[in-house]
Amino acid sequence: MSVTAESSRRNSVPQAIAELSEFLGDRLSTAQAVREQHGDDLTWNKGQPPDAVAFVQTTGEVEKLVGICGKYSVPIIPYGTGTSLEGHISAPLGGVSVDLSQMNNIIAVNPEDLDCVVEPGVTRKALNEHLRDTGLFFPIDPGADASIGGMTSTRASGTNAVRYGTMRENVLGLTAVMPNGEVVRTSRRARKSSAGYDLTRLLVGSEGTLGVITEVNLRLYGIPEGISAGVCPFPSVEAACEAVILTIQMGIPVARIELLDELQVQLSNAYSDLGLKESPTLFLEFHGTQAGVVEQSEMFGEIADELGGGPFDWATKTEDRNKLWQARHDAFWAAKTAMPGKESVASDVCVPISRLAECVEETRRDLAEHGLYGPIVGHVGDGNFHVVLFCDMDDAEEVKQANEFLDRLVMRALAMDGTCTGEHGIGQGKMKFLQAEHGAGLQVMRTIKQAIDPQNIMNPGKIITL
Amino acid sequence: MSVTAESSRRNSVPQAIAELSEFLGDRLSTAQAVREQHGDDLTWNKGQPPDAVAFVQTTGEVEKLVGICGKYSVPIIPYGTGTSLEGHISAPLGGVSVDLSQMNNIIAVNPEDLDCVVEPGVTRKALNEHLRDTGLFFPIDPGADASIGGMTSTRASGTNAVRYGTMRENVLGLTAVMPNGEVVRTSRRARKSSAGYDLTRLLVGSEGTLGVITEVNLRLYGIPEGISAGVCPFPSVEAACEAVILTIQMGIPVARIELLDELQVQLSNAYSDLGLKESPTLFLEFHGTQAGVVEQSEMFGEIADELGGGPFDWATKTEDRNKLWQARHDAFWAAKTAMPGKESVASDVCVPISRLAECVEETRRDLAEHGLYGPIVGHVGDGNFHVVLFCDMDDAEEVKQANEFLDRLVMRALAMDGTCTGEHGIGQGKMKFLQAEHGAGLQVMRTIKQAIDPQNIMNPGKIITL
Repeated sequence: MSVTAESSRRNSVPQAIAELSEFLGDRLSTAQAVREQHGDDLTWNKGQPPDAVAFVQTTGEVEKLVGICGKYSVPIIPYGTGTSLEGHISAPLGGVSVDLSQMNNIIAVNPEDLDCVVEPGVTRKALNEHLRDTGLFFPIDPGADASIGGMTSTRASGTNAVRYGTMRENVLGLTAVMPNGEVVRTSRRARKSSAGYDLTRLLVGSEGTLGVITEVNLRLYGIPEGISAGVCPFPSVEAACEAVILTIQMGIPVARIELLDELQVQLSNAYSDLGLKESPTLFLEFHGTQAGVVEQSEMFGEIADELGGGPFDWATKTEDRNKLWQARHDAFWAAKTAMPGKESVASDVCVPISRLAECVEETRRDLAEHGLYGPIVGHVGDGNFHVVLFCDMDDAEEVKQANEFLDRLVMRALAMDGTCTGEHGIGQGKMKFLQAEHGAGLQVMRTIKQAIDPQNIMNPGKIITL
Repeated sequence: MSVTAESSRRNSVPQAIAELSEFLGDRLSTAQAVREQHGDDLTWNKGQPPDAVAFVQTTGEVEKLVGICGKYSVPIIPYGTGTSLEGHISAPLGGVSVDLSQMNNIIAVNPEDLDCVVEPGVTRKALNEHLRDTGLFFPIDPGADASIGGMTSTRASGTNAVRYGTMRENVLGLTAVMPNGEVVRTSRRARKSSAGYDLTRLLVGSEGTLGVITEVNLRLYGIPEGISAGVCPFPSVEAACEAVILTIQMGIPVARIELLDELQVQLSNAYSDLGLKESPTLFLEFHGTQAGVVEQSEMFGEIADELGGGPFDWATKTEDRNKLWQARHDAFWAAKTAMPGKESVASDVCVPISRLAECVEETRRDLAEHGLYGPIVGHVGDGNFHVVLFCDMDDAEEVKQANEFLDRLVMRALAMDGTCTGEHGIGQGKMKFLQAEHGAGLQVMRTIKQAIDPQNIMNPGKIITL
């Protein structure tokens, strides 16, 4: 967009806000604290606040809002719970943050079809709470209690993805208000379809740049009869990764298989009182029948043993499992506590699993060579891992070092046929890598964005610049 | 496109053919038999032949071909094995059929990553033949020995989809020559990514209307240690569907669960010498460990018993399994043989599984009321079923009756929140239903098509008209 167009767009913001106020009343806020909170996410960068925040309650309200913002070319930034890690909710061009947290109704649960329809403000924990008595659950678990809308928008995944897939596989359809104000339902509730372009998957992972999601149809699963979980130390990251590969190759339907490097084990021992051996460690969970999880656990134990790992300590008691996964989810806080007063930045990359050990090892060498502190945890069944860095934001050299490290991390993953992000998304933070990752594909993405959102009002300045 | 533009496009076909001949030599054919064969598929409608057929061998050749056809606005119709069921390969506006069957190299098999990269002309059977010694297999099985490119283009699935998903879940990435001649690789080989729009899923199921696929990265699976299979009769379609729902709800990871209605059982008994009881019957297969498949089979047996079905006759012997699935795949021929001299049309719809019994029963009543002969088989774990009709194409009344039935079948599925096709695709045959199915979404599809293929050279007249 030209500078003139951009400035004319800025000039019309007050008019748009006035019209929005008229129908939203006090659910349209321009209070500084509210605006600042809505522009800021969990990253180290202070976000940019929007001009106003609209607390919407229905698809009809979103439709009206998009109409008004469209008329004045005012940016729209969808907001769920603010747990983004790549600057998705910042408002670099100003505009209206659309807070969807009040759209938190569970519209339908269809036990026979193993699916449900929810509004985007429902969080994953609230959904599972609601499902508790049905014998069903929604497995996708990115750690944070993110909203389903946000998780859909970033194509989130997490610890269970190795067994249950990501939001890509588990969003069956959705309703979105498109930039032209049209309400589109991307798919019927049938489990599969060959009827035209896959608009569902186009919207999943589009980070609010193609439309505002107002309903999501999710796949659900029966709570397994048997669950076992345990930890298994390995002599090296390589041996741990080899165990992951063999586990998957043998068709053991592992539900979670998470790597903590030595440093993270030290931190988690201190924070969560785990008492684990300080070596690369896998946290695992198996789902199946009672007999099935015993069989799976024993098969994995044998694999670990062959690779010099173990003993694989596993249990089927709920308390033990909960303690284990609480510790896994607290990995970030375990590190954060060890680095008081520093800002943190969590990055993720994903590579083919055959390259995972190499990628993690090179990354650890890189950290060591540059004197950086960065524990590593990974959803290793998918080849996906996270490095958390800590920075004194007032120390320009420290920030520069961290940024350079992150660049090397991504370029390393790309060189191994990997991706710059397995689950956090692009947002503002990783836009610079998309050309290297997608080549000519980036222009196809731009073509799509331009065609669907010619005014560039939907979360502009994220993923793609026009 | 206007009539003038269309006629100027027709006038430039000879020039395009001349330029294509120059670099393809005798791999560019305008022989009538070749053209006719390439325009005709497995449906009852005689297809329309292209102006020429190009037998390409490399992505580079496709790139060059698209460049030439783009220059003259000449349509491009990708062709795999010709097993389409909805007129995908017909050339209603003429143009060049791009026969990809000579692009049949298996480029890479990555056992550690459980994936492979193949050219689009590789057929699913050829791929599995190639994989035989690796302990891996590619599960998607639409019945016909279709090409991987064609299966990708129609978002195919088949008997194993209930366990392994469809082409949507199993194409990890692909390379396509876009209408502007750019070669795009939609994804890295990482198992998951949140890096921008999902171009892979946009191309999967786009039926050649957005680009020509020249490489496909597929997910593979370890051949299970144990496989059991069997047949189970039920007193009614409803009881059989109820058994399917309970099986899936209980988390039994059934690999195949196929319904044959009474009529199809009669036909298959006669054709494949099965000796089955003539009632609605499920064909099943379980994959897992040796102990696991025994457990799964027994659990299913109990479900069947509770619903008045059974006995569930199962075995783990390869010969028994092969006979069973050969009979299932021969279901179409069993019907065809019973109706000599008639043309057949196989249609499919897919509904939420909770509505499946109702949809199948209503469809059977409809057939009976109109005196139509139509055996029903279904991938019932997905809510997907097929009806095969037979017609004397010279009998206008018979053709009209069949067409009206197919319209009612689709409208019935849509009314139950289903889709007009679970796996055959839209092609020419089901374009008329897309407005009813997608509403405002159809315009979004049109916007995407127009933006990516503004000249409308990629398989025009399929899915969407511009």
